[in-house]
Amino acid sequence: MNAIGSDLPMVGPAADRAALYALGRQLRVDAVRASTAAGSGHPTSSMSAADLMAVLMARHLRYDWDEPDNPANDHLILSKGHASPLLYAMYRAAGVISEEELLDTYRRSGRLQGHPTPVLPWVDVATGSLGQGIGYGVGIALAGRKLDRLPYRVWVLCGDGEMAEGSVWEALDKAAHYGLANFTAIIDVNRLGQTGATEFGWDTERYAHRVTAFGCRALTIDGHDADEITAAYEAVTLADRPTVVIARTVKGSGFAEIEDKPGWHGKPLPEDMARRAVGELGGVSAIRARGPLPDAVTPPRVPVGAARPRQPIEAPRFELGEQVATRKAYGRALAALGARPDVVALDGEVGNSTYGEDFEKEHADRYFQMYIAEQQMIATAVGFSVRGYRPFAATFAAFLTRAHDFLRMASISQADVCVVGSHCGVEIGADGPSQMGLEDIAMMRSVHGSTVLYPSDATSAAALTLTMADLPGISYLRTTRGAYPVLYRPDERFQVGGCKVWGESPQDVVTLVGAGVTLHECLEAATRLSQQGIATRVVDLYSVKPLDEASLRRCAEQTRLLMVVEDHHPEGGIGEAVAAVLARRGTAPGAARFAHLAVDSLPGSASTAAALDAAGISAAHIVQAARAFLERDERPGGKPTPRSE
Amino acid sequence: MNAIGSDLPMVGPAADRAALYALGRQLRVDAVRASTAAGSGHPTSSMSAADLMAVLMARHLRYDWDEPDNPANDHLILSKGHASPLLYAMYRAAGVISEEELLDTYRRSGRLQGHPTPVLPWVDVATGSLGQGIGYGVGIALAGRKLDRLPYRVWVLCGDGEMAEGSVWEALDKAAHYGLANFTAIIDVNRLGQTGATEFGWDTERYAHRVTAFGCRALTIDGHDADEITAAYEAVTLADRPTVVIARTVKGSGFAEIEDKPGWHGKPLPEDMARRAVGELGGVSAIRARGPLPDAVTPPRVPVGAARPRQPIEAPRFELGEQVATRKAYGRALAALGARPDVVALDGEVGNSTYGEDFEKEHADRYFQMYIAEQQMIATAVGFSVRGYRPFAATFAAFLTRAHDFLRMASISQADVCVVGSHCGVEIGADGPSQMGLEDIAMMRSVHGSTVLYPSDATSAAALTLTMADLPGISYLRTTRGAYPVLYRPDERFQVGGCKVWGESPQDVVTLVGAGVTLHECLEAATRLSQQGIATRVVDLYSVKPLDEASLRRCAEQTRLLMVVEDHHPEGGIGEAVAAVLARRGTAPGAARFAHLAVDSLPGSASTAAALDAAGISAAHIVQAARAFLERDERPGGKPTPRSE
Repeated sequence: MNAIGSDLPMVGPAADRAALYALGRQLRVDAVRASTAAGSGHPTSSMSAADLMAVLMARHLRYDWDEPDNPANDHLILSKGHASPLLYAMYRAAGVISEEELLDTYRRSGRLQGHPTPVLPWVDVATGSLGQGIGYGVGIALAGRKLDRLPYRVWVLCGDGEMAEGSVWEALDKAAHYGLANFTAIIDVNRLGQTGATEFGWDTERYAHRVTAFGCRALTIDGHDADEITAAYEAVTLADRPTVVIARTVKGSGFAEIEDKPGWHGKPLPEDMARRAVGELGGVSAIRARGPLPDAVTPPRVPVGAARPRQPIEAPRFELGEQVATRKAYGRALAALGARPDVVALDGEVGNSTYGEDFEKEHADRYFQMYIAEQQMIATAVGFSVRGYRPFAATFAAFLTRAHDFLRMASISQADVCVVGSHCGVEIGADGPSQMGLEDIAMMRSVHGSTVLYPSDATSAAALTLTMADLPGISYLRTTRGAYPVLYRPDERFQVGGCKVWGESPQDVVTLVGAGVTLHECLEAATRLSQQGIATRVVDLYSVKPLDEASLRRCAEQTRLLMVVEDHHPEGGIGEAVAAVLARRGTAPGAARFAHLAVDSLPGSASTAAALDAAGISAAHIVQAARAFLERDERPGGKPTPRSE
Repeated sequence: MNAIGSDLPMVGPAADRAALYALGRQLRVDAVRASTAAGSGHPTSSMSAADLMAVLMARHLRYDWDEPDNPANDHLILSKGHASPLLYAMYRAAGVISEEELLDTYRRSGRLQGHPTPVLPWVDVATGSLGQGIGYGVGIALAGRKLDRLPYRVWVLCGDGEMAEGSVWEALDKAAHYGLANFTAIIDVNRLGQTGATEFGWDTERYAHRVTAFGCRALTIDGHDADEITAAYEAVTLADRPTVVIARTVKGSGFAEIEDKPGWHGKPLPEDMARRAVGELGGVSAIRARGPLPDAVTPPRVPVGAARPRQPIEAPRFELGEQVATRKAYGRALAALGARPDVVALDGEVGNSTYGEDFEKEHADRYFQMYIAEQQMIATAVGFSVRGYRPFAATFAAFLTRAHDFLRMASISQADVCVVGSHCGVEIGADGPSQMGLEDIAMMRSVHGSTVLYPSDATSAAALTLTMADLPGISYLRTTRGAYPVLYRPDERFQVGGCKVWGESPQDVVTLVGAGVTLHECLEAATRLSQQGIATRVVDLYSVKPLDEASLRRCAEQTRLLMVVEDHHPEGGIGEAVAAVLARRGTAPGAARFAHLAVDSLPGSASTAAALDAAGISAAHIVQAARAFLERDERPGGKPTPRSE
């Protein structure tokens, strides 16, 4: 990977001002060249931070470029992900990518994407949705301090514009709360956003005031003065608190034609301008820059990516028929999972509702309170995942929507994160619609590569909690507030992508599909229908994504009506997922008609029973809808042929 | 509605300390009684803020309880929505609800929901997802200052726990940025959250430091001292900046057994404790409290809820075949819509990408920059909607996920808000997955009562922009980055719930369904298929919610394959919406098989053409998939009967 020979000018920890500035100019030149070659990208946003990064990579970032998985490496996160040309120029300077790759592939193909993602071995997390990098950095720094107990530092380069995101302040608050002296954010205050001046321009004291109020140390510097930059980064190593370096910089710095000019955000320089820029910056160079290596860590406490010894975890056991809430079973299973040293839990100040607190009681050192800050809860989880831990983050299903952008980005980051949403649906009753998760299945299904699990009883909830801990990507467990009967014996197995079929017989004319509270309503409805002579089976669809397509198709072939009942809005939920399977299945004569009962209205406060009934997803409604369908379907002359409209 | 006679003790603007404390005790008593009667609710969170609200409603809130629609009324927002028993106790004191309604219905049925919603005429916005009330209040106050130019004040009661939400700081930042001296937040610092102590306990100075850093005035007071409360509220009226009153209070205040005790969050008192509490608080009383009336407003500048004079708006015109991006057409149509004085536009610092800037150029006084703060962008829009304006809020589709919880709550608030997401899908190419909206259709469809529109050309984009401005609820327009040919003449009409069918003939064997960029791919694919002897029609599904079910069913009956192609992840998008229609349609022999091409992988940076191809949604893939299906379908012996598996 050493694209640049060792006889090239080398900039390292002992570099003088002139060498650092030369490196900074090279980073600018390469950012300009890469974006002009691509015909898109953000050269000016890269140029403003070039000196900040030149000093960092040469003198302060303790990083073994030949071993990106070294657990002692510092972490560098490019929160202003659009400055990717700068990051990739650093990679070229470090000698880990070639000039050809930079100039020939950036933004067009391969791994040098428009915004960095972990397809590159030196990238921990995907960025590009602004205001997220600090949050991820806080998660990694928290792992360093409280879990790994390793001396690595976390550096996050931010733009000034993204400081308007509330998530940034959630993150800095947690950095201070947990005393993360190993965390440093560097704000590149280049005064210009996408559409014009940022809210505060070059008023670095304004940022400093806020940063200080949020419990971090603020250092305001000239971001183009190598001595000031060096002094700030050195001060970081002495800090007893997280540090935010607030650097006044010039957008497009180094090329007078565009320096500090609006209208140049996200625009590559035309070729003639690029040529003039490269000339003004001293031309193309091939300086190699490598800073200090991390101290050896022997043995690393948590070997990142390595298999950790795992004793077999036993799921909590529940008695058939016992009334237990799935959220409670989750808490007990999570506490048991704590025997695995990589499992950590995160709370959004509702741990006594989600039962995450059961984990806290047994493993307080791996339980992290994020207070009412769901975005930071997920960001911390992603940071933990970067360090090889297995985070479980839980809050009300409704409030996970607060973290939707972080969940989406977590999937692009290829993070392995377990997310748990409690108090789903109208089932919660009295609290009213603001607390009812009615969109969470749609949200979590649409996350790329996600797994969505929705147990109906305590046994399956506990089993699936254990299963989740080994799933790749973003996995989601939906839990219910109320207590319902245990349906399965402790030794029952629940495969991801499976389902359980209740009461199947060759005479069945109806298949009811439920999960969570609606499974219990479906079972009750099936009993009533069967008593009325309508043989009915029930599918417990505990695995919502992936679906057990074969079983669903079989039921559709063997019965006349397949009705999905869900405590969720109709869009993007279980019903549509099943409908897509059946619609793809096509029109085999004799296959079941599809019906769908979901929460199609705006619910209000009520008892659970009244809320289910008002939403039309109670046993009574299921019975009524099934009977109405069958009667209509059988009415002679009502339709051209049976089983069609 | 006057449940309480005029001979009752009256507390008003001239009330003395004793009367104010008596009112505060009554509010506590009623909160205790209501929650105990309901068997759920948050009495202790209500009791801590009772004195704060007693002083406010008696002396400072200028509100005509008999005319909640009076445009000069102050606004009161209960950001800590779980303290609903306190709010409803205030309503009883104001004489607008009866003691019976409070005690007999709270949290069980009717309008006194667990968290307040606008089913009550005195409630502006739904609350209950914490950290949102300040944002809505800022929107209303901004309308008061910059649009209505009316002297009403906005008061927001917050909990201390919710100050951990980043959205709060986005909101206070905007309050300061826009100099909203008419805005006051009152933080009820009762030290205890749901699971234990809040992050800062009673360290009110910590909150004050942050509030000041964010540009607002902080006043720290004892929240149980009527004189201090009064002085703070009086100071508000003299402020040149937004004020945050930081009040040290005691959770459960007034009942010694539970005062400042953990473990009492969200728990009603058992009946015996409730009796003791009522006794300790001086028993049940029937004080009536009404504060000052608002000044008369003649004539109100914007009569809330009244029809405003509207000149007919002409949509911008585009020539057939001209290459125009739908986002550009949106900008031009929005600028035209600006002729309507109620239309306002909001930007998240990407107005030159969404083309919201076209509105700014013509109507700068109704264009509001929220900087990179999507949560506050939507919160402001909801606040504007409360005041009868029609906000358009636009950013990249991907970044709308940041505001998912606000969008969800906006629907519960019954707000009328137009949301626009640009740069959707892999179509953007080079920027990479962080910038590609691939989950936005799922998100916006699952918002209760929403409308989702996805135009493919400039004419339909402009027409639908105008249409949106009159739609109730949350409506969403998805726009595309690149320029594509104009397909429709300026006089073409686009009904919500409709579609356009291209190239229909009785010989068609294939229906392709597309929207946005995939419509153009479908049209190209149809041309190629028809050249290969496979007659193909194309549906422009510009209305994703509601769907034109009749047309889709008709196409399914008339062709053998109905294939949806979308630039979105497969879950919750157009494909599943259509599949649900077809699955419900059932198994009429001869109906089309369903197929679905969507973005099923994690995309990377590429050119638009390469990105569409890599995602399998390009014309070439459509042709290939359609041919493969037809060939498999026709293969003799391959399947038991044609058109089935």
